[in-house]
Parts: sequence; C-alpha cells; structure tokens
Amino acid sequence: MLFEMTVPQYIKMLKNLSAILDKGAAYAASKKFDTEVLLQARLAPDQFPFVRQIQIACDTAKLGTSRLTGKEAPSNDDKEKTWDEIKNRVQTTIAYLEKFSAADFKGAEDKKISQPRWEGKWLNGNEYVHEHALPNFYFHITTAYAILRKNGVDVGKKDYLGPLPYKN
Amino acid sequence: MLFEMTVPQYIKMLKNLSAILDKGAAYAASKKFDTEVLLQARLAPDQFPFVRQIQIACDTAKLGTSRLTGKEAPSNDDKEKTWDEIKNRVQTTIAYLEKFSAADFKGAEDKKISQPRWEGKWLNGNEYVHEHALPNFYFHITTAYAILRKNGVDVGKKDYLGPLPYKN
Repeated sequence: MLFEMTVPQYIKMLKNLSAILDKGAAYAASKKFDTEVLLQARLAPDQFPFVRQIQIACDTAKLGTSRLTGKEAPSNDDKEKTWDEIKNRVQTTIAYLEKFSAADFKGAEDKKISQPRWEGKWLNGNEYVHEHALPNFYFHITTAYAILRKNGVDVGKKDYLGPLPYKN
Repeated sequence: MLFEMTVPQYIKMLKNLSAILDKGAAYAASKKFDTEVLLQARLAPDQFPFVRQIQIACDTAKLGTSRLTGKEAPSNDDKEKTWDEIKNRVQTTIAYLEKFSAADFKGAEDKKISQPRWEGKWLNGNEYVHEHALPNFYFHITTAYAILRKNGVDVGKKDYLGPLPYKN
C-alpha cells in the first residue's frame, strides 16, 4: 500500500526534523549566533543551503502525496527567512499530510505520475514512490541533518529515526 | 510487498553508489591524492568516516534482507582499507541481494524482527522496513555522498537517484 509506505513515515520524519530544528535553535542560542547562519549553511559551495533542503523535503512529501491522490496541495512561496518560518513550513506540511487516509490512495499504484521538469514523461505510482519520492525525501532530510551535524549541533541517529514501536 | 519495496531499490542504489565511488577515485587521481584520504573523511569529528558509512549502508541492505527472509547472510569483517576493497564490499552485497525474489518474502510483513542491540525487543516486518531499514539505508548512502560532495567530487542528484524508468 502506497499510503502506509509514505504518509505516516513522512509525518514521522517531519516531526523528527521539527525536533532537530529545535536542537539547532538551542545550539545557536547557547553559542550566541543567529540561526540565519545555519539557514544559509551548506556542505559545498554549489549545493543548496539548509533552508532549501528543508523546503525540498517538505515539497517532496507534499507534492508526492498530492500527485498520487489527485488532491490539490497548498502552494508555498519558498520565501522563509527565519527559523520560525522554516519550522512553520514543516508544521504546515505535517498538517496537510495528516488529512490523508489509505482510501485516498486507491489506484495510486498504477497512476501516471509526472512533474513539470519531466516534459510529459511519467512513472507509475509504484515507481514514483520507490525510485523517486522516498529516496529524495530521505536525501534532503539527511542532508539537512548533516549540515547541522557539521556545524556542531548535537544530533544523532536517534533524532533522525525518531521513536520506534518496539514490542517485548 | 516488502520485496519490491526493498531489494530492487537496494540493488539500484548500491549500483549508483558504485558509480559514485568511481567518480571519487577519478577525482583523487586527477588531484593526485590517495583515495585513503576520502575513506577516512567525515563531516564531523564524532561521526563515522566515509568507509564506515559504506559498510553500514551495505549491512543495512544485507542484514535487513536476511532478517526478513530468514536466510543467512555472509559475514563481513569490516576491515576494508582501500578503495578497491570498499568497492568490492558494495559489489558482493549486490550479488547477495540479487539471489532473492518475491517468494522469499512470504509472510515477512508479520515476522518479528530484532537485532542484537535491541535486547530482545522487536518490530514487525512492516515497521522494520518503513521505520528502520529504509530510512537507515538512505541515511548512510546520502551521508557517504555528502562526504564526497563536501570534498569536491563532482556528484549530483542524478548520480544518487540513478536512471528512472520514464515512459512517454
């Protein structure tokens, strides 16, 4: 089921990311530097900065879900300039995702999924989730995490994965 | 189906990683430095180096598949010291994964999955794939990619995602 493979995990990872953002803000406060420094930080000069990694992670989840279900997604202007604004971007994406249920994904596996830059070419829903949406989503979440990690924020794998539903 | 969510994508991403390793070796040769420098590179002093990121990515795919299917996995001693050795680690992991088919994953969704550090606690197969194996796999692939990216290797998103099965 494409729903259970995507939406619950998008929501969970974005909640983890929100907690990681809080750690970033606390670190900036403790070191007395402005969080805008972190928003513009990057691993390589020709790579997107932190703020753009978050925007793309959110859009991968939002647009991926919108395309698979045929339901419209709210548009974002990508103009976040502050930590509060980027945290709000994550929160509003979570709120959007929380409206979906498995029923919305009926037939999504075989849907023709495209996006503007593919110039009319398409993947089916399964291919889109496995080979594009999930790898991209985790790529941008991990890159955002890595930028904070490199800058000294005390985050670890548990912050990235979040709580696991262990049973005894 | 847990098979189609995992094995084909593990194989594809490890093949992409193998091509990324080739780009790293070519870059080291062009700049006349030893690839061992890259093997020990990391983003933060208390983070695993590149070589360990590759080992863990391979083990996440190998052990994840072994646990879900109940089939034994070859052991690795994690003693890779050269670029050829780490590339071989990726290749042997791909060869192991290529032996599996959907039939091996019958009932995997409800299997109790554990690992030594969980001290007897477990996740079911679905939870294990969605919340642990896939996020971890992409985490270590992306971190390896990020280490090379930060060190100047000319890799981009297409190298990470690999070819997509677009249709017209």
